[in-house]
Amino acid sequence: MAKDKKQPRPKAETPKGFRDYFGADVTERKAMLDAIARVYALHGFDPLETSAVETVEALGKFLPDVDRPNAGVFAWQEEAVPGGGSGDWLALRYDLTAPLARVAAQFRNDLPSPYRRYAMGPVWRNEKPGPGRFRQFYQCDADTVGSASVAADAEICAMLADALEAVGIARGDYVVRINNRKVLNGVLEAAEVREDQADDVLRQIDKFDKVGREGVLSLLTTGRRDDSGAEIEGVGLSEAQAKPVLDFLTAKGGENGATLDNLRAAVGGSTIGAEGVDELSQIAAMLAAMGMNEDRIVIDPAVVRGLGYYTGPVFEAELTFEILDEKGRKRQFGSVAGGGRYDGLVERFTGQKVPATGVSIGVDRLLAALRAKGLTGAEASGPVVVTVMDRDRMGDYQAMAAELRAAGIRAEVYLGNPKNFGNQLKYADKRAAPIAIIQGADEAARGVVQVKDLILGAKIAAEASLDEWKSQPAQTEVARGDLLAEVRRILG
Amino acid sequence: MAKDKKQPRPKAETPKGFRDYFGADVTERKAMLDAIARVYALHGFDPLETSAVETVEALGKFLPDVDRPNAGVFAWQEEAVPGGGSGDWLALRYDLTAPLARVAAQFRNDLPSPYRRYAMGPVWRNEKPGPGRFRQFYQCDADTVGSASVAADAEICAMLADALEAVGIARGDYVVRINNRKVLNGVLEAAEVREDQADDVLRQIDKFDKVGREGVLSLLTTGRRDDSGAEIEGVGLSEAQAKPVLDFLTAKGGENGATLDNLRAAVGGSTIGAEGVDELSQIAAMLAAMGMNEDRIVIDPAVVRGLGYYTGPVFEAELTFEILDEKGRKRQFGSVAGGGRYDGLVERFTGQKVPATGVSIGVDRLLAALRAKGLTGAEASGPVVVTVMDRDRMGDYQAMAAELRAAGIRAEVYLGNPKNFGNQLKYADKRAAPIAIIQGADEAARGVVQVKDLILGAKIAAEASLDEWKSQPAQTEVARGDLLAEVRRILG
Repeated sequence: MAKDKKQPRPKAETPKGFRDYFGADVTERKAMLDAIARVYALHGFDPLETSAVETVEALGKFLPDVDRPNAGVFAWQEEAVPGGGSGDWLALRYDLTAPLARVAAQFRNDLPSPYRRYAMGPVWRNEKPGPGRFRQFYQCDADTVGSASVAADAEICAMLADALEAVGIARGDYVVRINNRKVLNGVLEAAEVREDQADDVLRQIDKFDKVGREGVLSLLTTGRRDDSGAEIEGVGLSEAQAKPVLDFLTAKGGENGATLDNLRAAVGGSTIGAEGVDELSQIAAMLAAMGMNEDRIVIDPAVVRGLGYYTGPVFEAELTFEILDEKGRKRQFGSVAGGGRYDGLVERFTGQKVPATGVSIGVDRLLAALRAKGLTGAEASGPVVVTVMDRDRMGDYQAMAAELRAAGIRAEVYLGNPKNFGNQLKYADKRAAPIAIIQGADEAARGVVQVKDLILGAKIAAEASLDEWKSQPAQTEVARGDLLAEVRRILG
Repeated sequence: MAKDKKQPRPKAETPKGFRDYFGADVTERKAMLDAIARVYALHGFDPLETSAVETVEALGKFLPDVDRPNAGVFAWQEEAVPGGGSGDWLALRYDLTAPLARVAAQFRNDLPSPYRRYAMGPVWRNEKPGPGRFRQFYQCDADTVGSASVAADAEICAMLADALEAVGIARGDYVVRINNRKVLNGVLEAAEVREDQADDVLRQIDKFDKVGREGVLSLLTTGRRDDSGAEIEGVGLSEAQAKPVLDFLTAKGGENGATLDNLRAAVGGSTIGAEGVDELSQIAAMLAAMGMNEDRIVIDPAVVRGLGYYTGPVFEAELTFEILDEKGRKRQFGSVAGGGRYDGLVERFTGQKVPATGVSIGVDRLLAALRAKGLTGAEASGPVVVTVMDRDRMGDYQAMAAELRAAGIRAEVYLGNPKNFGNQLKYADKRAAPIAIIQGADEAARGVVQVKDLILGAKIAAEASLDEWKSQPAQTEVARGDLLAEVRRILG
C-alpha cells in the first residue's frame, strides 16, 4: 500500500520576472494615470478595458515595440470540452494595440467612427527578465481609429503635451517632437535608394543619436570602424545619395517654417515627400491654432524611432531636464512616450484598411521621471497610530481612531499583541506614522491623552542632547476632548 | 514544391467567457472602487497590487468561494531555458487571497505586523462561462494579517459599512450582519453532534434561507421531500440535538444584547461556544464605541454563508432595498460582500499559523446595485462635438475645442470625412454629445458660430409640431467670442 507522502512546503516567491507593488508604488502610479485619463477624457477619448486574455489567432504578431523585437507571449491551449473550452490557443495580451485592433473589427458597427479610445493596464511579455525589465508591466495608450486626417495626429500630440503637464512636468522640461515617414520615403526616392536598401538605411539612421552626422554618412556609404575596432559594413550608397538623407536628419531649423523649407529641399521632386512635408505643415498650423507653441511641440526630423513601423506622422515626447545616471553622470532623462500613424490595424480581420494614429506613454519611465523630480509622494504619509495600553479598553481606542477618520485623517488602532509597548512604537515607525496616541489607565482616569509627534521626535532623537531629549517636547498631554485639535495642529 | 497558402483571416472575437468594458463601464466601476479605496486608506489599509501570474505551486488550492467550488485556473508550463524560463508551471491568480498569502510569507520580515492591505483587480477562473458568469472578473478585498484580536474583525465590519455609504448606498439600505463559527461549534458540541456529521449539518443549515426552520429541522433529523417530490436524506440527528442548532439560527433578538443572551443559552456549557459568544459581545461593544449603531451592523446568527470556511467571526453585507427581478417580481437585492476570520493563510508556506481576517466586496454586484438605484452615470456624458464645415479651417475648429477644454469642458473636433454633414450629426448622436458647434464659411465671415443644443433638440424632435420644429429654438447663433459662455449656459 502506498503511503501518503507529505507535500513539501511551496516556495513563497513571485515568479521570475514578475513583481508586486506595495503602497506608494500603487498610489503614485494611480495618481499619475488618473491625471492622464482626465486629460484624455477632456479630449473626447473614451476608456476601453479589454480582457487580458485573447485568442492567439486574434492577437497575431503585431509588435510595434522595436525595443523588444523577440518578445513572446504567455500562451496555453484550452481543453476541448463539449459546451465548455474550445480547444483554442489563448494568450495574455502583449500590448494594448492588438486588442484595440480586435475590438475595432469586432464592434465596427457599434463604435462611433472615428473611434477615440484610451487604455491603461498591464501587458505581459514572455521574455527573459533582466534588471528593470519585467514580464508584466503597464502601458497607457491613446488612439484614434478611422480618421485619415492629420488633424487626428495634431490632436494626439497636443493631448500628449497637456498630459505631461497634467502629471506635473513643467513647460520647458519636455518637448514633443514630430517627424513623418512619408518625408523619409520622399528623401529615399529623391536619392534613388533602391527598395531593398530602405530597411538598411532605416537601421543606420537609427544610430544618428549615437554616431552623429559623420558616423551615419560612413554607415550609409562604405562602412566604419566602431569603438571596439570592429568593421561595420556600409549600406553602399554613394555620397550623393547619402547627402539628402543626412540633410533630412539635420533639417531642424530655428523654427518650424525653416525646418519645413529644409525638408522641401531634401525631398526634391518626390510626390510622396511633398505630401509628407505638407502634412507636417498642416500639423504645425493646427498646433499653432490650438495655442501649442514650439517650445511644447516642434517638428524635428531627427526623430527616427518608430520610422520603420509607422506610415505617416511619427511623434516622440522627451523630457529635457537632466538627471544623474547610475554612474553619477548628468544626462537628459530622454523619451517617455512615442507614437504615430499606422495602417492595417483592422485589415488583418476585415480586409479593409482603416487609418489610425496613436501614442503610448511609458508608464514606468514617466513615473521614474516624476520621482526624480520629487513630483510624487504626497499621498504616501502613514496613518496616525492609536496605541493600546490597556487591552480591555479597545473600544476607547477605536473611538479615537473613528473620530480622527471622521475628520478625514488616516488613523488606525494597533492590532498586534499590545504587551510590549516598544513593539507598538516600532510598528508606528514602520508605518511611517506621523503621530502616535497613548492613553494608559492613569491618563484615562484623568480624561487626557498623550499625543506623540513622531516626525519631530525623530528629528530630536537625531539632533538633540540627552537633556533636550529627556524634556520630550515632541510629546504633549491634552484633554481627551482636544485630541482631534491637537492632531490637526501637528499635521499642520 | 509547396505553395504559400494564404492565411485565412483571424476571427475578431473576445475569447469565450471574456468581455470588454467600454466607456461608462470603465469609469463607473473606477469611481466606485476609488471611493472604496479612499475609505480603506483612511482606516490605515495600504494598497497591494500583486502580479497577475503566480507559480501554480504558490497558488495552491485555497478557493474560499463556495459559489464556485469547481473553479479551475488558467495555467501553462514555462519553457526550461538556461538563464531564462524555469520550467515552472505558472497560472493566473484565481482570487486575491492566495497572492496575499504568498506575499505575507515572502515579505514577512519587511511588512508591518499586523499588515492591513487592500487589493482591487481582475482574477481569472477557468470554468464554463454562463449568462453573467465570466472567466475574468474584478475582486475588491481588504484583509488584516497577523492580528488575533477581534478588534480587527470589528474594524473590518465598520470599514465595510463606511465603504457602502461612500459609494452612495444610503443608511438603512444596507446592513452588515455578523456571526461566529465558534458559536456554531459550541452549539454542535452542546448538541453532541459527532465530528463526522458537522459538514452535513453545515450543508443543511445553509438552506435555512430557502426552507425555513421546519425545513432545516427535517433535514437535520429524518429528511424531507422537496418541491419536486424527491426524498432528501436527513443528517440523522435527534430532535433534541437539532433544537440548539435551530435555536442558534433563530437567535437574533430585538437588539444585540438579546441575541447574545439567546446564543449563550444555545451553546450551553461548551467552552468554545462561550468563547465565540464573548467574541461577538466584544465586537458589539467596540462597534458601539465607534458609533456604529445596530441599524448598520448587527449580530445575526442566520448568517451561514462561509461558516464552513471561516474559523471565527463571519460577516456579510446585504442590501435591503427591493429591486425587480427578471420576471418583474420584487425581491431584496441581497448580499454584496462577505468575509471573516481564517487561519492557515501563511501556514502553507512557513508552517506558522498566522491569524487573518478580511472582507471581499462583489464588485459586479455592488455596481449593479448602484445602477439599479441610479447612483452612477454622472460621468458618462459625451463631449461637445465641433463639426467641420470647411476642411481647410481645421485649425479654427481645433481652436474652439481647445478653448472649451481649457475651461474644463469635454470637447472634440469631428475627425471623419466631413463631406456628409448628416454623418457628423449622427456621429454626435452616437457620442451622446450634449452640444454640436457649427461654423460654415458664411458664419466665419460674420464672426459667429451656431450652437446646437442636442438634448433639447432631441426633446423637441420627439414632442414638437412641425412649425415648432422649424423654428429651431434648440440652435442659437452667437458671436465667436461668446462660444464658451453659450456652451456653459446650455450645460447649466
